[in-house]
Amino acid sequence: MARADGRNPDQLRPVTITRGWLAHAEGSVLVEFGGTRVLCAASVQEGVPRWRKGSGQGWVTAEYSMLPRATNTRNDRESVRGRIGGRTHEISRLIGRSLRACVDYKILGENSVVIDCDVLQADGGTRTAAITGAYVALADAVSWMRERKMCKGDPLVDSVAAVSVGVVKSTPLLDLCYTEDVAAETDMNVVMTGAGEFVEVQGTAEGRPFDRAALDRLLDLGVAGCAELTRLQKAALA
Amino acid sequence: MARADGRNPDQLRPVTITRGWLAHAEGSVLVEFGGTRVLCAASVQEGVPRWRKGSGQGWVTAEYSMLPRATNTRNDRESVRGRIGGRTHEISRLIGRSLRACVDYKILGENSVVIDCDVLQADGGTRTAAITGAYVALADAVSWMRERKMCKGDPLVDSVAAVSVGVVKSTPLLDLCYTEDVAAETDMNVVMTGAGEFVEVQGTAEGRPFDRAALDRLLDLGVAGCAELTRLQKAALA
Amino acid sequence: MARADGRNPDQLRPVTITRGWLAHAEGSVLVEFGGTRVLCAASVQEGVPRWRKGSGQGWVTAEYSMLPRATNTRNDRESVRGRIGGRTHEISRLIGRSLRACVDYKILGENSVVIDCDVLQADGGTRTAAITGAYVALADAVSWMRERKMCKGDPLVDSVAAVSVGVVKSTPLLDLCYTEDVAAETDMNVVMTGAGEFVEVQGTAEGRPFDRAALDRLLDLGVAGCAELTRLQKAALA
Amino acid sequence: MARADGRNPDQLRPVTITRGWLAHAEGSVLVEFGGTRVLCAASVQEGVPRWRKGSGQGWVTAEYSMLPRATNTRNDRESVRGRIGGRTHEISRLIGRSLRACVDYKILGENSVVIDCDVLQADGGTRTAAITGAYVALADAVSWMRERKMCKGDPLVDSVAAVSVGVVKSTPLLDLCYTEDVAAETDMNVVMTGAGEFVEVQGTAEGRPFDRAALDRLLDLGVAGCAELTRLQKAALA
Amino acid sequence: MARADGRNPDQLRPVTITRGWLAHAEGSVLVEFGGTRVLCAASVQEGVPRWRKGSGQGWVTAEYSMLPRATNTRNDRESVRGRIGGRTHEISRLIGRSLRACVDYKILGENSVVIDCDVLQADGGTRTAAITGAYVALADAVSWMRERKMCKGDPLVDSVAAVSVGVVKSTPLLDLCYTEDVAAETDMNVVMTGAGEFVEVQGTAEGRPFDRAALDRLLDLGVAGCAELTRLQKAALA
Amino acid sequence: MARADGRNPDQLRPVTITRGWLAHAEGSVLVEFGGTRVLCAASVQEGVPRWRKGSGQGWVTAEYSMLPRATNTRNDRESVRGRIGGRTHEISRLIGRSLRACVDYKILGENSVVIDCDVLQADGGTRTAAITGAYVALADAVSWMRERKMCKGDPLVDSVAAVSVGVVKSTPLLDLCYTEDVAAETDMNVVMTGAGEFVEVQGTAEGRPFDRAALDRLLDLGVAGCAELTRLQKAALA
Repeated sequence: MARADGRNPDQLRPVTITRGWLAHAEGSVLVEFGGTRVLCAASVQEGVPRWRKGSGQGWVTAEYSMLPRATNTRNDRESVRGRIGGRTHEISRLIGRSLRACVDYKILGENSVVIDCDVLQADGGTRTAAITGAYVALADAVSWMRERKMCKGDPLVDSVAAVSVGVVKSTPLLDLCYTEDVAAETDMNVVMTGAGEFVEVQGTAEGRPFDRAALDRLLDLGVAGCAELTRLQKAALA
Repeated sequence: MARADGRNPDQLRPVTITRGWLAHAEGSVLVEFGGTRVLCAASVQEGVPRWRKGSGQGWVTAEYSMLPRATNTRNDRESVRGRIGGRTHEISRLIGRSLRACVDYKILGENSVVIDCDVLQADGGTRTAAITGAYVALADAVSWMRERKMCKGDPLVDSVAAVSVGVVKSTPLLDLCYTEDVAAETDMNVVMTGAGEFVEVQGTAEGRPFDRAALDRLLDLGVAGCAELTRLQKAALA
Repeated sequence: MARADGRNPDQLRPVTITRGWLAHAEGSVLVEFGGTRVLCAASVQEGVPRWRKGSGQGWVTAEYSMLPRATNTRNDRESVRGRIGGRTHEISRLIGRSLRACVDYKILGENSVVIDCDVLQADGGTRTAAITGAYVALADAVSWMRERKMCKGDPLVDSVAAVSVGVVKSTPLLDLCYTEDVAAETDMNVVMTGAGEFVEVQGTAEGRPFDRAALDRLLDLGVAGCAELTRLQKAALA
Repeated sequence: MARADGRNPDQLRPVTITRGWLAHAEGSVLVEFGGTRVLCAASVQEGVPRWRKGSGQGWVTAEYSMLPRATNTRNDRESVRGRIGGRTHEISRLIGRSLRACVDYKILGENSVVIDCDVLQADGGTRTAAITGAYVALADAVSWMRERKMCKGDPLVDSVAAVSVGVVKSTPLLDLCYTEDVAAETDMNVVMTGAGEFVEVQGTAEGRPFDRAALDRLLDLGVAGCAELTRLQKAALA
Repeated sequence: MARADGRNPDQLRPVTITRGWLAHAEGSVLVEFGGTRVLCAASVQEGVPRWRKGSGQGWVTAEYSMLPRATNTRNDRESVRGRIGGRTHEISRLIGRSLRACVDYKILGENSVVIDCDVLQADGGTRTAAITGAYVALADAVSWMRERKMCKGDPLVDSVAAVSVGVVKSTPLLDLCYTEDVAAETDMNVVMTGAGEFVEVQGTAEGRPFDRAALDRLLDLGVAGCAELTRLQKAALA
Repeated sequence: MARADGRNPDQLRPVTITRGWLAHAEGSVLVEFGGTRVLCAASVQEGVPRWRKGSGQGWVTAEYSMLPRATNTRNDRESVRGRIGGRTHEISRLIGRSLRACVDYKILGENSVVIDCDVLQADGGTRTAAITGAYVALADAVSWMRERKMCKGDPLVDSVAAVSVGVVKSTPLLDLCYTEDVAAETDMNVVMTGAGEFVEVQGTAEGRPFDRAALDRLLDLGVAGCAELTRLQKAALA
């Protein structure tokens, strides 16, 4: 099956990771997966949330949001509606959980890092681009902390990257763009460590249920995609 | 490894499915997975949400909530806090998606079914118990509609059941109770059709990343658990 | 006048009070007045609200809510709407005030009891059933505290029960079910102590104003009904 | 017992009812019960709420609120807090119900009257002053409508007035001021028609439960107080 | 051009400043600019907001609001809508900033004054009337504090007054009433100190952009109007 | 006085206007005033708000927001807080009013343009940069509409630009950066048409009141700055 942009089924879109995009944030990255463009800003804060005080351990959390005109038609702002939608909540939680998988809280000490992932432009895979970029922003924020001796060693025990995979017209594809995402029968997000282990696997039957063989083929694609993204993260941080 | 309640690793807790627990709802089920107790009420409404009007197709949605004292310590009500939390949003969306996987919207016609899943008592696996019970409530609501000729045929193309699996102290376990859930290194929810295909797979590394072999073992457990739950749903509906 | 369910005008519906319905709560009761079914959970918390700190006195409060499909047609959740309605506020306040009438705060010490009254099924008289059941849940929570020496003596100076009365087609009736409640010209809720004194009297002209004689007849019915409920509470606690 | 302001137990505070206090409202009254000062504005609106459309019947509703510095210490605005408190809800509902007791909806036709009762200064009895003043504002709004032939006859079938009564140091008192209200063992609000029938009776044991004799003495005081207020309303409207 | 009420273009409406309108507030003023009537209540509170603690400096802030029927047609309450509108926010901030221009925070000490400006009736210029009245209420609150030795000297370094000006049918006018305000091509609010310096100048092209000459003429009118209001404030405080 | 970045008092920071920064929006601009970076997206929508339907006239509105880490320290999201702050409201209103000053609604027809101005990075003057960029985004959106014959002619009757001016250490300065803004005694925003007339003038005494001479000097600076920005807008659109 030919993809709209001529890619092979197992090929990522062009990925760019631009570090230091913001002047103020301790770590910041503009990450692009094709037309998807997410600004990731890591903010270091001394101290931890109340429920964690006195534990000697740090905390990492994330907030995801989309600008109103990131998409093809304008969406109302969640601030104007006065409440955060379920999709936003769900993705913010996923990003936070994913990043926490590579952090040693004790080495981080009682410090917090909040990573804001704002989608400036959306073309599918915004949550996986966000995780991939957020890790790099987190790494820069951690370097900033280490320069200031805020932590006793390297709190990052591994790296984290993520990619979407899905079945479109019976063909498993890597890194779906928006039109592919809409047409997918099955959609899966795979979050992995640099060491090649799973942090999160979320597969959803959009159009029809899927069998174990389809699940396995999607996991294969996701594993390969994350490995390539891990390579790109390393190159960006080099 | 011995489980606290003496179960085998691949054994479900005692499951009861009590139909018709409420007088008013078109379908209602009190479902129990051990100490987890969820009241599922299916409400039939003529018409569909605005964005679906004129499509000739129906809609199924779900809302999940937990009573303040379902858990070991009391949680504030989301109505009092004035906003729904991320976890509630996420689970409501999961239940809705899962049920929609077994519905033929065209046969349903322009009717809606809302399924309220209220956790009266929580002991792990509330979302999977909710999905399993909600399907039975939905089936009863659909029977109610068919008696009234509201749909032209059976809109349920299959059944749906769900179970949690996880790795605790390196042992894969089926249907985690609360203490097991808290101790799990990896946690996965598996939603399947009666025909044995996947609707949703959500695996999360709680403590440490997991490899492909662990993922496969958890899927095996989940497949077997869902098959048993499908059998119990059929018995309850017989 | 014959009542729909064959009761005499001065007769309560079948009342059941099931203690210990929940595993986690310090006191819990499923109370049923005919088809009205309310789950009352009493949660003990060390400490008191900020405005009461250092007083040496405790606090008792209540929250009332109705599940979306407790009623004949589904109501939107207040958590989804993002605000608590006036009726909910009013009833929560009434239940709290009623229970506080039987508590000696000094003996309770600086401890709080929150009583959640969730209506699982509604058929009229939900607030009076809630008060009647909540007292029993409170009594169990107090026993739990006394076993743990959290208070220096018995903080319950009396019991509290409540019942609705009303005038339907010119006949004063005790314990109105939903269809009677809707048809009532005058509606009154009576809350009384076990000793037979009034805690709260709320009479409302629904259809037409009422005179002193009607008020007196309603009070007579309410006094008798509360006495019977007091007897049932004592039996349940025996 | 001597009252702080020298009144007899069965004596109202000085009551003034100033009509036409606002230039824009169809009916407006500044009502004063001693130091309690409530501005009541009746707004006529063509049409009725959605649930009443096509019924041929009108609607009357009320909203109560207190300015932040109506009281001895400043209260935060409910608009700033983003939610209406339980007390405000409860009183708004009481005022609406009370006024509706004197309205014939069919004669009113499909028109609405909203009565805003804003407490400019509080010294006890704000809700009863509000009801008493709101009736006069409603009467003026109805006259305004009748001049414009918006209704076919007089939709007011009677008048409505309200007063608080309470037991302070074992003495039943009429029309409690703030310091008396705080000291009251029992507190009751009585709403009556001009014809001397009850619209609403709300008695609450603040400090200790009360017996039937106390209830009767309070009702006697309330009946006399409402009769006097009815006389003052008539004089104001003459 | 003749103005509807016969005023000259450079003439204020009748202004009345009634001090001590409320019994409880430390300073209170009912200010009237023609048909515009604003109740200003100054509340003294010991202590300052958290971000200012330990600075040795005080704080002054304001909240503006309009009663629902202050205007020709009824507006919904912001408390009912659950959020404060942009216009309310903007005016509250303007009043606070204006008053702070005449306060020496160090002399005020760590005390706060909150000034509530509630529009009882609106006929144009509500924000400028509010500022003019709020200053007088603030002055009375400051006197109250000085009597109690809460501050070491006079924290008011000057007075503040405000007036609206605008161009209607090409004629610059002082102190616009509502009908003039609606018809204005340009609208400006001028806030000045008693010493004749500017605190705030906000000019807006409502219908068409304005040139420097028009701006100058409006400023001339505003300067004269504020001088007259300063005189009236002094007289009221004498 | 030497400015931190070596500019003359009457010199703008480097200004860049990048059109077409977003793929989806009908008009989009990334505008930079030195370190201030605002993304302006103009969205065309058929139809107008309800209150304007049937008028034959269009509508233009704007929403301003700041990303959490646009500033030196992180700010909580307004969507998370559940309400929009006063500053955001105020600036959104200012931008909308400013743009509307150059639009002929009748030529626009019953179409709406919403302009989202999201501050990606803040270094003073975000509202004036937003207005200046938003005009260019609006112009592009209007061209898009004209290509599709959505309006009968050019609805833009002029251009609009804005700049901040202020007095720092007694020196009037053009286009304040953040550190200058914080130190300013007086702060003014000037919005002007391309023809050199005023749309909005907002001057505020931050530290001390200002006299007419200072006001005049600031206006002179603002007039010159807006003329230069108008030239840059024209160049960008050429």
